[in-house]
Amino acid sequence: MSLALKKSLGARSLFLPEPVLLLCTYDAEDRPNVMTVAWAGVCGNEPPSLQVSVRPGRWTHQAVLLRKAFTVCVPSAAMLEAVDYIGLVSGRRDDKFKACGFTPVKSRLVDAPYIAECPVIMECAFLEAVGLKSHTVILGEVRDMKVDESCLDPTGNFPDITRVSPLVYDDGSVSYFGVGPFLGKAFSAGRAIRDGSRA
Amino acid sequence: MSLALKKSLGARSLFLPEPVLLLCTYDAEDRPNVMTVAWAGVCGNEPPSLQVSVRPGRWTHQAVLLRKAFTVCVPSAAMLEAVDYIGLVSGRRDDKFKACGFTPVKSRLVDAPYIAECPVIMECAFLEAVGLKSHTVILGEVRDMKVDESCLDPTGNFPDITRVSPLVYDDGSVSYFGVGPFLGKAFSAGRAIRDGSRA
Repeated sequence: MSLALKKSLGARSLFLPEPVLLLCTYDAEDRPNVMTVAWAGVCGNEPPSLQVSVRPGRWTHQAVLLRKAFTVCVPSAAMLEAVDYIGLVSGRRDDKFKACGFTPVKSRLVDAPYIAECPVIMECAFLEAVGLKSHTVILGEVRDMKVDESCLDPTGNFPDITRVSPLVYDDGSVSYFGVGPFLGKAFSAGRAIRDGSRA
Repeated sequence: MSLALKKSLGARSLFLPEPVLLLCTYDAEDRPNVMTVAWAGVCGNEPPSLQVSVRPGRWTHQAVLLRKAFTVCVPSAAMLEAVDYIGLVSGRRDDKFKACGFTPVKSRLVDAPYIAECPVIMECAFLEAVGLKSHTVILGEVRDMKVDESCLDPTGNFPDITRVSPLVYDDGSVSYFGVGPFLGKAFSAGRAIRDGSRA
């Protein structure tokens, strides 16, 4: 590996890769709404938790804080047009579930709907919020993960990423990509370096 | 899209896709250290900020809280063995920079090193921490993004994801994947649904 010359791009808010997730809520009038998010991350396993970042002006923002719940649905690459449409318009004005032909299902665990058509669902209870100037970092506790039977791995205990076929978001090119080929097993591929460095 | 039967997997802490990032710090003795993280997300653009989740027992955890700084380095797929090795051992015992042949560069902006060999670097100042039972969710303000000249997009203002060739992590299969093909432009692919639903 060479020591390439680096260009300073200034303070930027992106990294590679980012996920493409659909964040679903009920608003004050019980209307299901959904927004597309790429600024999100897993937070911990006790409790199982994740983070989604939402601007205070978004319709979803007040819904999450009001209902203290949301779901995170993982769309498949086949849903790209719907995912992108959801990022173009506001639930204040548009019924995005209807426009996409999505079926809202009321969660039995939290006060939020999920998208029946998405292969992976995480039902989240509001946990905590950190207010930044541009966004609120919303932490949610995952109460259940639901996965389409056809998208389970051979053990039946996890989603199979190649069957789910999630999208990858690239902030730089403002584009969606797919997930590429399997490259290696974790906690395994690095053993030669470990064993060599201790020899 | 059919309404597939979903299996409930219980409360799980993963989503798809997750990033693969290297988190670099100086410890109390000024030794550079690095850990692999997949539980991380972008938080906002004012200030440009991101989140990384670290267990309190990790060597990196005390380093971040002591030095109030860290860098997030995006490795390329070609660095997979090193990335995985870094996740196998602790900086308490091992000099991971040396074992990987990585060059630590002292940031001029924050009190942390970065990896010269990584194509994308984010230098972060500690912003805030949220303590969960298993992990501390560490928020950092990005002070600068540095990108290898050879990995810039044609405008020179962003990293080119295909040139960077970042890894994708899959918690379910405990595996690394690459980024797949370009699938569509954001804020564009969904216009037909938007225009149709308003016709």
